[in-house]
Amino acid sequence: MAYFQSKPAAGRHFLQIPGPTNVPDRVLRAMDNPTMDHRGPDFGRMGKALLDKVRAVFKTEGPVVIYPASGTGAWEAALANTLSPGDRVLMCETGWFAHLWHEMATRLQLQPDYIRTDWRRGADVAAIEAKLREDKGHEIKAVCVVHNETSTGCASRIDEVRRAMDAAGHPALLLVDTISSLGSIDYRHDEWGVDVTVAGSQKGLMLPPGLSFNAVSEKALKASETARMPRSFWDWKPMLAANATGYFPYTPATNLLYALDTAVDMLLEEGLDNVFARHDRHAEATRRAVRHWGFETQCADPRHHSSSLTAVRLPEGHSANALRATILEKFNMSLGNGLGQLNDRVFRIGHLGDFGDLQLVGTLGGVEMGLKAAGIPFQPGGVLAAMDYLNGNA
Amino acid sequence: MAYFQSKPAAGRHFLQIPGPTNVPDRVLRAMDNPTMDHRGPDFGRMGKALLDKVRAVFKTEGPVVIYPASGTGAWEAALANTLSPGDRVLMCETGWFAHLWHEMATRLQLQPDYIRTDWRRGADVAAIEAKLREDKGHEIKAVCVVHNETSTGCASRIDEVRRAMDAAGHPALLLVDTISSLGSIDYRHDEWGVDVTVAGSQKGLMLPPGLSFNAVSEKALKASETARMPRSFWDWKPMLAANATGYFPYTPATNLLYALDTAVDMLLEEGLDNVFARHDRHAEATRRAVRHWGFETQCADPRHHSSSLTAVRLPEGHSANALRATILEKFNMSLGNGLGQLNDRVFRIGHLGDFGDLQLVGTLGGVEMGLKAAGIPFQPGGVLAAMDYLNGNA
Amino acid sequence: MAYFQSKPAAGRHFLQIPGPTNVPDRVLRAMDNPTMDHRGPDFGRMGKALLDKVRAVFKTEGPVVIYPASGTGAWEAALANTLSPGDRVLMCETGWFAHLWHEMATRLQLQPDYIRTDWRRGADVAAIEAKLREDKGHEIKAVCVVHNETSTGCASRIDEVRRAMDAAGHPALLLVDTISSLGSIDYRHDEWGVDVTVAGSQKGLMLPPGLSFNAVSEKALKASETARMPRSFWDWKPMLAANATGYFPYTPATNLLYALDTAVDMLLEEGLDNVFARHDRHAEATRRAVRHWGFETQCADPRHHSSSLTAVRLPEGHSANALRATILEKFNMSLGNGLGQLNDRVFRIGHLGDFGDLQLVGTLGGVEMGLKAAGIPFQPGGVLAAMDYLNGNA
Amino acid sequence: MAYFQSKPAAGRHFLQIPGPTNVPDRVLRAMDNPTMDHRGPDFGRMGKALLDKVRAVFKTEGPVVIYPASGTGAWEAALANTLSPGDRVLMCETGWFAHLWHEMATRLQLQPDYIRTDWRRGADVAAIEAKLREDKGHEIKAVCVVHNETSTGCASRIDEVRRAMDAAGHPALLLVDTISSLGSIDYRHDEWGVDVTVAGSQKGLMLPPGLSFNAVSEKALKASETARMPRSFWDWKPMLAANATGYFPYTPATNLLYALDTAVDMLLEEGLDNVFARHDRHAEATRRAVRHWGFETQCADPRHHSSSLTAVRLPEGHSANALRATILEKFNMSLGNGLGQLNDRVFRIGHLGDFGDLQLVGTLGGVEMGLKAAGIPFQPGGVLAAMDYLNGNA
Repeated sequence: MAYFQSKPAAGRHFLQIPGPTNVPDRVLRAMDNPTMDHRGPDFGRMGKALLDKVRAVFKTEGPVVIYPASGTGAWEAALANTLSPGDRVLMCETGWFAHLWHEMATRLQLQPDYIRTDWRRGADVAAIEAKLREDKGHEIKAVCVVHNETSTGCASRIDEVRRAMDAAGHPALLLVDTISSLGSIDYRHDEWGVDVTVAGSQKGLMLPPGLSFNAVSEKALKASETARMPRSFWDWKPMLAANATGYFPYTPATNLLYALDTAVDMLLEEGLDNVFARHDRHAEATRRAVRHWGFETQCADPRHHSSSLTAVRLPEGHSANALRATILEKFNMSLGNGLGQLNDRVFRIGHLGDFGDLQLVGTLGGVEMGLKAAGIPFQPGGVLAAMDYLNGNA
Repeated sequence: MAYFQSKPAAGRHFLQIPGPTNVPDRVLRAMDNPTMDHRGPDFGRMGKALLDKVRAVFKTEGPVVIYPASGTGAWEAALANTLSPGDRVLMCETGWFAHLWHEMATRLQLQPDYIRTDWRRGADVAAIEAKLREDKGHEIKAVCVVHNETSTGCASRIDEVRRAMDAAGHPALLLVDTISSLGSIDYRHDEWGVDVTVAGSQKGLMLPPGLSFNAVSEKALKASETARMPRSFWDWKPMLAANATGYFPYTPATNLLYALDTAVDMLLEEGLDNVFARHDRHAEATRRAVRHWGFETQCADPRHHSSSLTAVRLPEGHSANALRATILEKFNMSLGNGLGQLNDRVFRIGHLGDFGDLQLVGTLGGVEMGLKAAGIPFQPGGVLAAMDYLNGNA
Repeated sequence: MAYFQSKPAAGRHFLQIPGPTNVPDRVLRAMDNPTMDHRGPDFGRMGKALLDKVRAVFKTEGPVVIYPASGTGAWEAALANTLSPGDRVLMCETGWFAHLWHEMATRLQLQPDYIRTDWRRGADVAAIEAKLREDKGHEIKAVCVVHNETSTGCASRIDEVRRAMDAAGHPALLLVDTISSLGSIDYRHDEWGVDVTVAGSQKGLMLPPGLSFNAVSEKALKASETARMPRSFWDWKPMLAANATGYFPYTPATNLLYALDTAVDMLLEEGLDNVFARHDRHAEATRRAVRHWGFETQCADPRHHSSSLTAVRLPEGHSANALRATILEKFNMSLGNGLGQLNDRVFRIGHLGDFGDLQLVGTLGGVEMGLKAAGIPFQPGGVLAAMDYLNGNA
Repeated sequence: MAYFQSKPAAGRHFLQIPGPTNVPDRVLRAMDNPTMDHRGPDFGRMGKALLDKVRAVFKTEGPVVIYPASGTGAWEAALANTLSPGDRVLMCETGWFAHLWHEMATRLQLQPDYIRTDWRRGADVAAIEAKLREDKGHEIKAVCVVHNETSTGCASRIDEVRRAMDAAGHPALLLVDTISSLGSIDYRHDEWGVDVTVAGSQKGLMLPPGLSFNAVSEKALKASETARMPRSFWDWKPMLAANATGYFPYTPATNLLYALDTAVDMLLEEGLDNVFARHDRHAEATRRAVRHWGFETQCADPRHHSSSLTAVRLPEGHSANALRATILEKFNMSLGNGLGQLNDRVFRIGHLGDFGDLQLVGTLGGVEMGLKAAGIPFQPGGVLAAMDYLNGNA
């Protein structure tokens, strides 16, 4: 049996967690090409072209650093390159991943200010502006926001965060986590004045996990010159020096770079705007199913709905984990669990990456059958509501 | 873009023709192992084990000949090994593929008696018995039946055909085409006294096309000794001689044999009875959706419903081909076309091979959305009817 | 362990039989794309482009029929489409494969005239001419020649055969087997006036076995209209009719067509002349090693040396099979065995397909080490002789 | 063309750098299985079994931490988990990689004592002992040694380092880099009392780059409780907590874990002792070729010869880089370049990982042909010297 099966399972597994996402065959086939000499001339050619091409996905003209490490590493890189021990940073608790990033900042000996939310909306832009206005001495060195909270399905408005920072006239860096939004929700590193964009390979980029990214502004680069956080593996400086000729200062994850090269081609062939529209459409269809069933989405603010995943709140007294176990057992589909305070309260449907209408119908059908099998009261027909929307907007 | 895409298509293509079917990743990965020396000792070991193991799928203790050729070739092999030019054979026109086999027999200079049907049921067992009883001189050398008519979704009752032949006391050989049933609908070569079972790789066996099979009875072997049809490539004799030690008389399709080895393992791991039950369940769910929509299945006799595909009749005045084109264009799903006299009248849903509940829900959802998009009147909710059945029988 | 290993073996297996050859990773990756709908619009586009592109490899402007069957089938197709039972054909016994083709012709109820050789050279062109001149009544309907005898490493001069036929003013068809030469030794279907070229996928075309080919002249097509050999699977007529729009009359071996598409691209990217020069160079290097060791090649006529394989004669009293077993056991390399009368007398080194200089050095090194290990007297240094030649002609 | 080719290249590329090494097909096929839910039950089962199994390769009963990061990261992890800013560490400059580790330690604000060598031998055990004896106050917190210096082909004697530390009665931790030795040269984490073993995936483990490892002793774990280096991504504590049930605290590189699972199986099937013997034998054969050519290995002490790679010194006045470029261009082989002070002075032959005799013969043949092509004087026949040794020790 394959790695992902503990028992024989006919048919394709539905991997509908909000990442890692379903890797397209074309990307898998690229990835399993023979590993090449990472110091040879062909590598340099490939590396240079790839480092250039990948910028389009971030909508930046500046450099994008690629780490042979998973997304959590790129969080650390963003902090370690721009900050010094003891620095104050402003963080927004939008959910579990914002919480983990906050925890990391603390472990790295930073002093985070922490704006709390109810985990049902994106970052509180007014609170950010207020905090920054208070900080007359500009002690806050960075504002850290998770663009798309994978634990709640709430997307923060980075354009508004930028405007709030400008309105406050505050010089802090803007660090944004796009791990579960890049390549699925519209994102504009340059236009929004982001200083470090943190990203990972295993969501909208349609790769297996193992690569992560920092897109870096001029201002961030300048900050890195004086930042005193001890760093070596994550250090941008040798990276950028080697990248200039298409190479890396230490062994890159060559085969994942093949996969990235192919995945970026796929995104650009489809067109980023088409990619975003597809995700928006699948998200709206999903929400219609959820509403039809009679449930709430965890995201309570329509302006903050995520297009890459939907977290669904179950009625009191019902276990989301039991539901997920039922669906996995009976229908061969993996859904995301509730994280932190949402454990067992919500389940999460990933609808991002390499994903089409019929996969979505199958996914929602699996949830609907699972609800019934698990004995959770719901209004049948959510799948039809989604299909109606998809059909009218195909 | 990949071979199967003329334009960028996000998400997985739904290949819901009644074969070739979706090849599991595990089988694809086996297939792309390096080709090996087909005369070396490792090949012999692999070949012997595989030739032995594959018998279980046919439910036979006798030999199974594997051709490096697609299914049509195995039809020819069945005729060429057992018959002589001018021989009379009794064939049953259950649909397009029975028609093609009949055409082949004619080209090969046999004289087929042809029992017509309305293409809405399996072989007419009473007519077979009558024809055989008439044939006092035993001039009919073989009865040829397609187990599962891929063009109509009607499965013939081979057990009843056998009983009819026995009742008539007729010594003709029984040749059965199981191309679209083997590995998805219960089939018993030995128990049903079949003399040659014809099969192909690309349906229930979950392989790409390129291999085909003859399971051969003692009686068929004996017939081959005197059969005078010119034959060389298809000749069983050198095949069986070489197979005795695990080899083949000419270069086998090595990589497809790797794939076969893995596919047979998968069927046996799941258990053939479970495999059949899964197909029965998916077929019943599909029929419930079809009935809910307000359509007829092409198969008009419930005792003959196929478990591997469903052919759906559209109301007069609606084009099945236009529907299929709409579904391909908008929803990235391939459905089977109507063949011969059924062209544009029916479309066919394949639900066989490596296939699970959520793929079926997505498939039926795609059909339902396509019906609406194509402007064909139907009762919405077929998907829910299918889901209700699946859920009650999970 | 992988399919090709009965015991753990570190490092890559050297598959140096004269076919199947080492399949490039790029071809394997193409082959394991998902199977597509062979009746859908994307297939037609792919099929049409491929059927067109493949002609370049045969150097023909005419049609090339692609069978989902291994090479032996294409032999049968060439005979079955152009001839009638009882027809006389002229065949040349250049070795084991010519022998098998002769045997096939006999089984198919043709009457072959058979020109014998000593299996140490190509077809006897003078004898062909003489036989044809004798045949005043033009009863001989076809001349059948194996271009490259895989059992002996002798290549027949098809250009000279053509001239001999013209000189004799004989209208017989010219049928040529290029199974082990196409894509590795210069071959010109149109220029040499060949009527049917028989080819297979698993040698110079660098695919796994499972596809075979007939390139067909106008004259052969015309002959097929009156040829009365019973045929169905092999019949060109429905093939060519369906091919006109890129389709096939029965299920093609879709995944092998993907592989073919990629392999033809690779041959054309390298350039056919470069491909042939590479094979010539490897063959000459191999012969220098063989001569240095003190052995004879099976081919005794320098004008007939094959560029795709070398058959090596061992001194009397030494077993080629024991040598091959030693080399397989100790050095993880498969070599070709002696076939028919050459069993145990020769071993064969395949140096065709996707093959480079260092693989050849490893191959010859394996033979040289094997000779010593097997206790066969030889002059050490054959590898160096080959390297000297390669280096001077890199 | 494939990623690794800037121009058409027939035959397989010889990737004979000392890592990344040639990834076996079986490992590539495992790697490209669909990504699975890293929080689902099947993952936990796989993770637990793998975390357990991998210990055998390190010869430890203790935990092995697996990072979704390349080897350089595991260096950082070893330092960051066990040490505090300002700590003294004793490092041995055995070559370029020891130099880089030293540089990293400095960047991470440690204070390294640095024992210099001439880059032609392993770590100076006597100097280590002397330094430790001097350090009466036990200010040195760790001794850092590179087991196998990939830049020089010198292997340090870790058993002797251990004895020296014991002899000095010094409590420092022993941190060992086995990136280019694990799985190819005998290594014993527990027996040699190593506290942190640093390893990477892309050498003896036969994977693509992207995973790295820390095997951790009880003593190291205890040290980590008080170590104050800021750390988060590299922190062992949450890793070990999650690993207890087979999971990871952040997204693991799932597909590389599939590959690791298969690679460890392959090593254990072959048997670690057989793996080491194979590498020893290939290394000795390589050195015999080098000596025959008339060159020196960079390693000047026979007790320190590496079994995974050989660095070859060219005569004065000859450019190793030009030689490598010639070999890449003419013979499609990548060799390792000279690093740091050895740039252009040496070239390095990797003979580790999934590697067999004939690949070695091809490799050495490529070097020998390249030497001639590049006009570097040498004694021809090195390949034969290697073959003689291999044959006598097959």
